[in-house]
Amino acid sequence: MPSRRDLANAIRALSMDAVQKANSGHPGAPMGMADIAEVLWNDFLQHNPSNPKWPNRDRFILSNGHGSMLIYSLLHLAGYNLAVEELKQFRQLHSQTPGHPEYGYTDGVETTTGPLGQGITNAVGFALAERTLAGQFNRPGHDIVDHHTYVFLGDGCLMEGISHEACSLAGSMKLGKLIAFYDDNNISIDGEVRGHGNVTGWFLDDTPKRFEAYGWHVIPKVDGHDADAVKAAIEAAKKVTDRPTIICCQTTIGFGSPNKQGKEECHGAALGEAEIALTRENLGWPHAPFEIPADIKAGWDANAKGAKLESAWNDKFAAYKAAHPELAAEFERRVIKNELPADWAEKSNAFIAAVNEKGETIASRKASQNTLNGFGPLLPELLGGSADLAGSNLTLWSGCKDVNQPGFDGNYIYYGVREFGMSAIMNGLTLHGGFKPYGATFLMFSEYARNALRMAALMKIPTIFVYTHDSIGLGEDGPTHQPVEQTATLRMIPNMHVWRPADAVESAVSWKAAIERQDGPSTLIFSRQNLPHTVRTQAQIDAISKGGYILKDSDGAPEAIIIATGSEVELAIKAADALSAKGKKIRVVSLPSTNVFEAQDQAYKDSVLPPSVTKRVVVEAGVTDSWWKYAGSAGRVVGLDRFGESAPAGQLFKEFGFTVDNVVANVEAVL
Amino acid sequence: MPSRRDLANAIRALSMDAVQKANSGHPGAPMGMADIAEVLWNDFLQHNPSNPKWPNRDRFILSNGHGSMLIYSLLHLAGYNLAVEELKQFRQLHSQTPGHPEYGYTDGVETTTGPLGQGITNAVGFALAERTLAGQFNRPGHDIVDHHTYVFLGDGCLMEGISHEACSLAGSMKLGKLIAFYDDNNISIDGEVRGHGNVTGWFLDDTPKRFEAYGWHVIPKVDGHDADAVKAAIEAAKKVTDRPTIICCQTTIGFGSPNKQGKEECHGAALGEAEIALTRENLGWPHAPFEIPADIKAGWDANAKGAKLESAWNDKFAAYKAAHPELAAEFERRVIKNELPADWAEKSNAFIAAVNEKGETIASRKASQNTLNGFGPLLPELLGGSADLAGSNLTLWSGCKDVNQPGFDGNYIYYGVREFGMSAIMNGLTLHGGFKPYGATFLMFSEYARNALRMAALMKIPTIFVYTHDSIGLGEDGPTHQPVEQTATLRMIPNMHVWRPADAVESAVSWKAAIERQDGPSTLIFSRQNLPHTVRTQAQIDAISKGGYILKDSDGAPEAIIIATGSEVELAIKAADALSAKGKKIRVVSLPSTNVFEAQDQAYKDSVLPPSVTKRVVVEAGVTDSWWKYAGSAGRVVGLDRFGESAPAGQLFKEFGFTVDNVVANVEAVL
Repeated sequence: MPSRRDLANAIRALSMDAVQKANSGHPGAPMGMADIAEVLWNDFLQHNPSNPKWPNRDRFILSNGHGSMLIYSLLHLAGYNLAVEELKQFRQLHSQTPGHPEYGYTDGVETTTGPLGQGITNAVGFALAERTLAGQFNRPGHDIVDHHTYVFLGDGCLMEGISHEACSLAGSMKLGKLIAFYDDNNISIDGEVRGHGNVTGWFLDDTPKRFEAYGWHVIPKVDGHDADAVKAAIEAAKKVTDRPTIICCQTTIGFGSPNKQGKEECHGAALGEAEIALTRENLGWPHAPFEIPADIKAGWDANAKGAKLESAWNDKFAAYKAAHPELAAEFERRVIKNELPADWAEKSNAFIAAVNEKGETIASRKASQNTLNGFGPLLPELLGGSADLAGSNLTLWSGCKDVNQPGFDGNYIYYGVREFGMSAIMNGLTLHGGFKPYGATFLMFSEYARNALRMAALMKIPTIFVYTHDSIGLGEDGPTHQPVEQTATLRMIPNMHVWRPADAVESAVSWKAAIERQDGPSTLIFSRQNLPHTVRTQAQIDAISKGGYILKDSDGAPEAIIIATGSEVELAIKAADALSAKGKKIRVVSLPSTNVFEAQDQAYKDSVLPPSVTKRVVVEAGVTDSWWKYAGSAGRVVGLDRFGESAPAGQLFKEFGFTVDNVVANVEAVL
Repeated sequence: MPSRRDLANAIRALSMDAVQKANSGHPGAPMGMADIAEVLWNDFLQHNPSNPKWPNRDRFILSNGHGSMLIYSLLHLAGYNLAVEELKQFRQLHSQTPGHPEYGYTDGVETTTGPLGQGITNAVGFALAERTLAGQFNRPGHDIVDHHTYVFLGDGCLMEGISHEACSLAGSMKLGKLIAFYDDNNISIDGEVRGHGNVTGWFLDDTPKRFEAYGWHVIPKVDGHDADAVKAAIEAAKKVTDRPTIICCQTTIGFGSPNKQGKEECHGAALGEAEIALTRENLGWPHAPFEIPADIKAGWDANAKGAKLESAWNDKFAAYKAAHPELAAEFERRVIKNELPADWAEKSNAFIAAVNEKGETIASRKASQNTLNGFGPLLPELLGGSADLAGSNLTLWSGCKDVNQPGFDGNYIYYGVREFGMSAIMNGLTLHGGFKPYGATFLMFSEYARNALRMAALMKIPTIFVYTHDSIGLGEDGPTHQPVEQTATLRMIPNMHVWRPADAVESAVSWKAAIERQDGPSTLIFSRQNLPHTVRTQAQIDAISKGGYILKDSDGAPEAIIIATGSEVELAIKAADALSAKGKKIRVVSLPSTNVFEAQDQAYKDSVLPPSVTKRVVVEAGVTDSWWKYAGSAGRVVGLDRFGESAPAGQLFKEFGFTVDNVVANVEAVL
């Protein structure tokens, strides 16, 4: 029977060989964390390689995603659908083994990691999803939701600010089923993090103390190469259920490489053929590259164990279903099938019709809250929150309950002032399954979180990002808080659907689109200030979901088109009215989502913006560069290519030319 | 003689009255921190209101910038150029008292704050600038640089991830002259941060323990309304010179307001006339709004003290100048006049000429390093660094010395994996004066730092942000690390100058432009992979600094123009060659900086891109939307509107259509 070290060495060999073959990658972390991973996966991890989507599996997240060969080795060895041929294709085009673990590319990869600190933050989301789902679904004697979230992380993750946001919140929330493993190897890319000689380094934190300050259960100074010590630590971690645990593992980066272990050299480059030969010898691993002896493979294979685990859970679920048929059906809908309620289409459309009927002049952030009050009762999977701006973002609706309330069955998260943390936690909640998370801050502070939005778009997951106070209309808080370039730059994230609605009806439709979207995130952008209701036909209401549509047309072919979004649609309509009064034929196009509009077929797009009508003026209170695509060479853009100022909103719109007169003047100039 | 409390109440009255008059703003924090501010400003702060730019002043930073009336009150009371009329114009257009403290709007405001966590991070930069400047300039018996950095911060700052990055690094660096005051009032916008009843809140950190973990000197549980206690704490803080200090002040938000103090209600809204009347009574402040009795004003006025302090320093500096004339001249150049060396123009141009002469095919990140080796010896004010990617970003040059080396006279900062922290620290270094900071990471991780770049642009300060690995040319690390939309979105920050050079010559010119710029930041974007040298005339070399120029022209009027940047310029030239061979007249325009090009006069821009030539193809390996401004309605854009993949770079360029054939095909399609 192979020893634990032999089993771990399989990871080391696969990792160093795959990196060598690609001549690219990071052998150090997989070789350093192999022993820890071996204990966790072989003795603790509850999973089933033949069904990577089994809902009650433990989640494993590699926050130090550059060590991707660690997770690929584990998935291969445990018996997931990841053939050795794929390991040989490490970092090659269209392989299942990209440079960093990519969600959707490889079974068993729970989230895309690489951008440091976001994996541990996703993990907090996973753990919170587990607790909340358990709170909502478990019943006495029926713990159908009951699993752990395990996360590996390194010095890089711990230096990143987002690790503070996530771990501070996890501590406040007392997420007892979250267990983190800190790969404490004293090495980052620039060298020894604690310094050398009399020169201090760049990371001298007392990490155990830091996590105690967050209220975590801390297990310090575990020898990460001593399987018994690691096992005892995990057992201790699982026993503490009222706090998350961090196990601080002291490891040697590149363990086994006689000349490179413990040094930065083995962090991010192939070891080289000669050193690999020496490492094989040193580890007592005589096997050829990518060759795993049968007894080692047998020692790792988790299919039999996994099938048993899932089958036991299936029995449990059957008993639950017998006792609580409605809850079980709801669990199947939300978690297993990931479907909207059967009455969603009808009721959501009825709500939108009612909003249209009402025709209120309100801020779109208020319209957003009204929509939450309309949609919330239909969607128990909604899991809301705000980064300490609930009263400003208007993210609380009548059915909200704090997730920290006893019973843990709530649906609202007080994230604190942690925009990036919130956003990556939402990604974790989404990835876990069972929830439709939304979370809000001021639009400006989307910047603090930007890479988490990108990660949602890259992973093709439907997280909903809500931003209010969307322009100089924010007023007195001034230029630090007034978005100018944010909407434009968010639209540029591939696969992101950005919505900037013009009134309450467009707001409700944008929420509906975000909720229905399955293959990517949505960003909903709302105003602080009131926006007037626009009268629409049913056909126009239906067209909102196409991202752009004719809001007001001219009698006969238009001479010019005014294109606008959000709060500037009002200006466009009034300018068109003024121009009509002068006998001009002006079409007004509302473009609440350029991203969605672009995805329509060419015929539809041309029907809204006929190529023959080249006289076009775009109006949006933001930077102009990307609007020339719509304005065209013969057009104009009324925008704002500078920072705002601190003053009441009405004054600012005038100061910066967002007036009917100025829009009229611009249209007349192109005519 | 007025009591300390009377003096502090002047802040409270001005703050509540100004917020009331504006009917907008945050009275809670100024009223809560008034007693602390009174002790610090009246007993400790070394400054001279009549010369807010005196180089050896202590720096005061309000990281919780929403409490702006605190600093406006202090500046007014201490005798800065801030008339009471300006306080009455709080948050009004073009006043000196915008909603948040804005650098450049108000004398004595050292940095713009509001986006939480960045003020404390700027402060770390200020303190590091002081230590490094002292290391470089002080001589035995001549401590001409010797001042403290004081920073106020609240719960919001401490929840933000960037506070972790900044404070962890400040602890590692042992910045003994940094003294932070934590306004521990248990309130954030969503309510009580520690929770209530049996529901846990969102911020339960043991902050003293957290800062101990960072290696700070921590003074816990100081009564923030007890002037003696605050005074003793500051004295203790100043005595500890080998570690930064945090003084944890327990305060009551909105102190003095009988019905609103201690509650979120007074955080971000006017108290209301009735409550203000009650507060006046409660505080024993009978004076009319904006009226400060003479004895109170006298108790605050710091002009006499300030003049004395500055005069004593002037004497000190005279003695220094006598003993060390060359150093003193250099201090005057760098710190007081903020000028480049006299020989800069000549020598930097000579370096660029030499680069051109050499004509190397190298990665532009390598060209950047060569430039640092060329310019570094000319510029002792350069203060470099990288977020743990020195060897990848190539930010180290031959004259680099770690700022943590004994003597503290170095010029290179190992920031660790802290992109946002690095960027806001650089802003602090820039604002302090005496340095030209640059700092680097991969272009992708500009996203982690984005709002600090915006803050530099808003403050009009010349911080230099360096980003390498600028496209899918990064290769195997895959889509998490491959920039697609980053260059485009960085260009959209108002007042940012983004450069994406095409070869070593453009790289050197972009560095020169960044170094010479005074009124805003620059972003320098470099490739991982080699880029071929392009032959240029001297006139073309001179034109690079205009941001865009004709790199290769046709014989006679061009039929089409190919516009490209960075690594895609090579494709443009080769495509033009191929088309020329087919008898087409093609101009190639290199646009290393669209931002700088846009600032040229129309005649120059039209000479490069004649409006009559509408057949244009833009080539850049990134998102396309903003390029239509240049391509025009009759043009095309060869770009990348999707995420990349993990594979060797050469394969990716082919996969995504960045080939000569494809560029040629696109030009032929528009012709």
